[in-house]
Amino acid sequence: MTGFDAQLRRAAQAIAAQFEQIWQSQPRSDLIDAMAHATAGGKGLRGFLVHESARLHGVADLALAPACAIEALHAYSLVHDDLPAMDDDDLRRGQPTVHRKWDEATAILAGDALQSLAFELICDPKNGLTPTAAGRLALGLARAAGMAGMVRGQAEDIAAETAPVPLSLAQITALQRGKTGALIEWSATAGAVIAGDDPAPLAGYARALGLAFQIADDILDVTSTPETLGKATGKDAGAGKATFVSHLGLEGARARAQDLIETACESLAPYGRQADILCDAARFVVARQH
Amino acid sequence: MTGFDAQLRRAAQAIAAQFEQIWQSQPRSDLIDAMAHATAGGKGLRGFLVHESARLHGVADLALAPACAIEALHAYSLVHDDLPAMDDDDLRRGQPTVHRKWDEATAILAGDALQSLAFELICDPKNGLTPTAAGRLALGLARAAGMAGMVRGQAEDIAAETAPVPLSLAQITALQRGKTGALIEWSATAGAVIAGDDPAPLAGYARALGLAFQIADDILDVTSTPETLGKATGKDAGAGKATFVSHLGLEGARARAQDLIETACESLAPYGRQADILCDAARFVVARQH
Repeated sequence: MTGFDAQLRRAAQAIAAQFEQIWQSQPRSDLIDAMAHATAGGKGLRGFLVHESARLHGVADLALAPACAIEALHAYSLVHDDLPAMDDDDLRRGQPTVHRKWDEATAILAGDALQSLAFELICDPKNGLTPTAAGRLALGLARAAGMAGMVRGQAEDIAAETAPVPLSLAQITALQRGKTGALIEWSATAGAVIAGDDPAPLAGYARALGLAFQIADDILDVTSTPETLGKATGKDAGAGKATFVSHLGLEGARARAQDLIETACESLAPYGRQADILCDAARFVVARQH
Repeated sequence: MTGFDAQLRRAAQAIAAQFEQIWQSQPRSDLIDAMAHATAGGKGLRGFLVHESARLHGVADLALAPACAIEALHAYSLVHDDLPAMDDDDLRRGQPTVHRKWDEATAILAGDALQSLAFELICDPKNGLTPTAAGRLALGLARAAGMAGMVRGQAEDIAAETAPVPLSLAQITALQRGKTGALIEWSATAGAVIAGDDPAPLAGYARALGLAFQIADDILDVTSTPETLGKATGKDAGAGKATFVSHLGLEGARARAQDLIETACESLAPYGRQADILCDAARFVVARQH
C-alpha cells in the first residue's frame, strides 16, 4: 500500500465515522437513512484532498468538518443527478440509487438536506474553524456548487445531450470545470484557505486534476463494465454525446490525461516532497478502474 | 396603506432589485431564468421579517443580503415541493411552476442553485456582515433548512399523507415547526443575530407567528379558490389529511390563530411601539386572502 492508498483510506474512515455520529444524533427516519446511504461507499477523494491540503498547511486538525462537508455536497449532487428527470440511474457505488431504494421524494429531500448539512458542518464553531476561515470556505463552496459552478455545469451537460451540434473540446472543458472541477478545486485548496495561505499552487494542481478526472471518467464510460464501475456505462456513447474520448480517441484521451498528471504534479513544486501523496493521487485518478 | 403594508412593499422591492442584479451578473440560461421566475411574485414576508428585525436592532443597512438569502432558500423549497414526486403542483404565485414552465431537471437544478445562493449571499464579505455574524446566520440557516428543520418537516408531511392514523394536533404542530416555522424564526431573529443581541423576544414572536401562518394556510386551503390563492386549493381535505382545520374546525382554527397573534404581539413587549409593524405583520398573516 502506497502512502496515498493509506491516506485515502484513513481520510475515508475518519469521514465515515463522523457521518455515523451525525446520523446517530438524529431520530431515525427514511430521510436520515437515505442521507447515510448516499454518503456511504464512495472513494472519498474530495475529502482526502481536504485532509491532504490541510496537512500541507499545518492545519490537519481542522480538516474533518470541511472534508465531511464536501463529501455531503458531492453526495447530494449524485443523488439529484441520478433522478429519473436527470440521468435516471439505478446504480451508484454498486448500490441502488436513493430514488430506487426509497422513492423520488426521499431522494430530492435527502439531496437537499445534504447540501444544508455541508454548510452546517463548515459554519458550526464547535468544528473549530475561525469565523473568517469558515466564511471563506462556505462562500467558496456556495460558489463552486451553485449557479456559476457545479449546477451550471450540470445544466450545460443536460443541454448538451440535445444540442444540434456536438460540443467542441473547449466547450466540454469549460463544462467540466463547472460540473466536477469547481468542487475538486475547493477541496484541494481548502487547507490553504483555512490557514490563510496562498491557494494558487493547489488551485493549479486541482484544475489539472479535475480535468484528468473527467477524462478518466469518459474513458471508463467506454472501457469499463457496470460491475466494475458500480454504475451504468456506455451512457455517453449511447447518447451520441461529445466527450473527451469522442474528440481525442481512446489513446489520445489517455495521453492527454497523462499530460495533465504532469501538469498537476509540477504545480505542487513549491511543496517539494511533502506533496508526493497528492501527486500519487493524480496518478491514481487516471489509473483507477472505478 | 398601513406602516406594515408600506414596509412589506419596500422590502420586497429592495429584494427584487437585488435579485435582478444577481441574474444580470450571470450568462442568460434556462437555469438563471428559472431561478428568477422562482424568486418573483412572492409576498416576501420572510425577507420583510429580516429587514424589520434588523431595523429594531440598529443594523438595517445589513439586512438586504440575508433578506435575499431567505427568499432564495424559501423559493428553492417551493420549487422542489411543487415537483411531481412531491406535491405535484402546476400553479404557484399565480404562475406556472418551474417544472411546468421548463422541465423537472431545470426545477431540480434551479432549486439546488437557489439553496447555494442563499449561503453565498450571507457569506460574501462584500455584503457587509462580519465573519462572526455571517457564520451565525449561515449556521442557523443550514440548521433551519436541513435534516432537523424544514426538510425534516417536509418529509414528515409526505409521510403523513399515507399514515394509517391521522396526525394528532401535537404532531401537526411539531411538523409545522420544522416545515415552515424554522425559516420564519430564522428570518425574525436575523436582526438580533447580526447585532449580537438576545434573539429570545423575536424567537417567541416567530414561533407564534409561524404557527398562525400555518393555521391560516390550512384555512385558506379550505376557504379560498385557486384564482385568489395563486395555487391549488382543497388539496389537504381531498387527501384526507389531518390539518388544524380538520382538528379544530374552521371557527376553532380561526380562534386559535387569533390567540397566537396575541401571543406574538406580547412577545414583542421589550421593543415597545417600535415593534408595531411586526405586530401588524402577524395580524396580516392571519387576515390575508392569499
